[in-house]
Amino acid sequence: MPELRFDPVQLRWVIISTERGRRPSQFHQKTEHTKTSFCPFCAGNEETTPPEIYAVRENGSHVNGPGWKVRVVANKFPALQIEGEMDRQAEGMYDKMNGVGAHEVIIETPDHDKQLHELEFDHLVDIFKTYRFRLTDLMKDNRLRYVLIFKNHGVRAGASLAHPHTQIIATPITPKTVAIEFDSARAHYNVKERCLFCDMIRAEIDDGRRIVYDNDGYVGFAPFAARFPFETWIMPKKHSHDYSLSDDESIANFAKAVKDILARLNVSLSNPPYNFVLHTGPNVNAQPRRPNHWGTIEHDFHWHLEIIPRLTRVAGFEWGSGFYINPVQPEEAARFLREINPDAKYEPEE
Amino acid sequence: MPELRFDPVQLRWVIISTERGRRPSQFHQKTEHTKTSFCPFCAGNEETTPPEIYAVRENGSHVNGPGWKVRVVANKFPALQIEGEMDRQAEGMYDKMNGVGAHEVIIETPDHDKQLHELEFDHLVDIFKTYRFRLTDLMKDNRLRYVLIFKNHGVRAGASLAHPHTQIIATPITPKTVAIEFDSARAHYNVKERCLFCDMIRAEIDDGRRIVYDNDGYVGFAPFAARFPFETWIMPKKHSHDYSLSDDESIANFAKAVKDILARLNVSLSNPPYNFVLHTGPNVNAQPRRPNHWGTIEHDFHWHLEIIPRLTRVAGFEWGSGFYINPVQPEEAARFLREINPDAKYEPEE
Repeated sequence: MPELRFDPVQLRWVIISTERGRRPSQFHQKTEHTKTSFCPFCAGNEETTPPEIYAVRENGSHVNGPGWKVRVVANKFPALQIEGEMDRQAEGMYDKMNGVGAHEVIIETPDHDKQLHELEFDHLVDIFKTYRFRLTDLMKDNRLRYVLIFKNHGVRAGASLAHPHTQIIATPITPKTVAIEFDSARAHYNVKERCLFCDMIRAEIDDGRRIVYDNDGYVGFAPFAARFPFETWIMPKKHSHDYSLSDDESIANFAKAVKDILARLNVSLSNPPYNFVLHTGPNVNAQPRRPNHWGTIEHDFHWHLEIIPRLTRVAGFEWGSGFYINPVQPEEAARFLREINPDAKYEPEE
Repeated sequence: MPELRFDPVQLRWVIISTERGRRPSQFHQKTEHTKTSFCPFCAGNEETTPPEIYAVRENGSHVNGPGWKVRVVANKFPALQIEGEMDRQAEGMYDKMNGVGAHEVIIETPDHDKQLHELEFDHLVDIFKTYRFRLTDLMKDNRLRYVLIFKNHGVRAGASLAHPHTQIIATPITPKTVAIEFDSARAHYNVKERCLFCDMIRAEIDDGRRIVYDNDGYVGFAPFAARFPFETWIMPKKHSHDYSLSDDESIANFAKAVKDILARLNVSLSNPPYNFVLHTGPNVNAQPRRPNHWGTIEHDFHWHLEIIPRLTRVAGFEWGSGFYINPVQPEEAARFLREINPDAKYEPEE
């Protein structure tokens, strides 16, 4: 069973996951995906993954067989485990609990070599509806306080398999980064009775210098205090704290925005490694809950997607300080991305 | 002039440093240090660095010439700039200030190919006395709230030059990570009238499972909630909140501990990339200061060194959540490091 341990200095939980453990000699890093003949996520290899949780499939195709377009399975090497009690307890002066939670993989396409932004528009819509379905489903489990959906693309962004996929980790505690956002959003709302993110969207559209993309429902921009070069946030223009409440029209507009922005990053930065993370609201169904714990969360918070190309390395300064050095002005990065033709194709040099 | 910008969502400052800027096409990452014939940190090339701020030198040798053992210069591509006013101001709904601060490099040895732990013991003592000297000196500048001393070893840990060096970045704001530590330490002291770190040291020595190294003055251990495999913290056994107040005997014991632990990591993990960060107290001389801002800091806080081997990659989960998955039990990591012979030499395979 993985274990959650609390750091009393940084006030942060850590997952000690020996299920994923390696011997010290096994930590040598690779820098490229090795080209192997076998990929567990490719069509035809369905039996090598844990059983299917959900799939978008052709009519008549069979569960755990081929014929799928998007497929969700449990992670074979889960960081957290779905069965069991949390069993919060002290260990001497420290605190720990069992590593209860969910760890799933959304295989975005049967095609090993197609990147997310290269898929057909309808296919992206299916993927983002799958996000909604899994969020809704996992939020029924009242042990889980937060459902985190994220994607690692490229070895340098932490992807261990090249085949396009998204991951879901649902945790029995509210992650620290998320908790800080809920708190800052709440503080803003308490003073102004306006959503912090709605204020940002209006300010960004009025200013214009940091805008990368704009459609009826969504805006993509370089944040004023971007941590990383070409960091881009995508936000729904209509206030909503919870991605899982998005309707089909909203998801279609979201898919357009993501496809366009990922294509711009791909062309302009030569297929960069990247991470993206969906920042959505908490699981308000989680128990036990302190009275008024989530308060006005549906007014305070505003879901969004943060995309981080991984171009610079995080070093001692960032680890020690928690602040970041960004060598590219957000206004410059946005202008560069705006001016790129997203339909151009990045051609790797051989 | 670099700019400091505040992220209203994560409540975090970011340095936008276009001095260090590169064109988008210049972000391709290298994975090894390129072997070039020229290194600005090597003996004989003193004139290619900014002028010397301080050096440990042979008698009779000349400033900015050879004959030094440890040498401190300003960073040629500084993230922050020492001249100028802070000029805090709003920009629309956002907040910014000038990037005032210091960015220095401590060149640890004239020898390009010697790693820190391979230097003679007396040489390490000179380096760590240099840390003390620069800390003391920079803390006289009352614009600077914090002086961060850190080291990046290896390209994957963010070192841009292979020649052994430490960096110093002094900032006009208290970095977030540090502020959290001061707060958690204060909260502990307020309740118990005991130092959080003194409590940890006693608990670790009593327990023993996570101890890596122990001498008269210092203890090195794997923290209970280590974020990374083989993460090791070194703490002075005698309570002290500020590294710059260490006496010569304490620095000698510190040098012994660092040399031993880095040698253990080097042998057992095959010369891993690593970062270390000195967590010392704030600059209590900084102005303006709110009444009682640092309160009982000299009782609350306890300086220490955090060493992080960079064996795993930080991916979407960590960026999105601020919590970490560690695949190695801290007790296992400590046992492994304890059992290694630090005098064995890591021989790279050719």
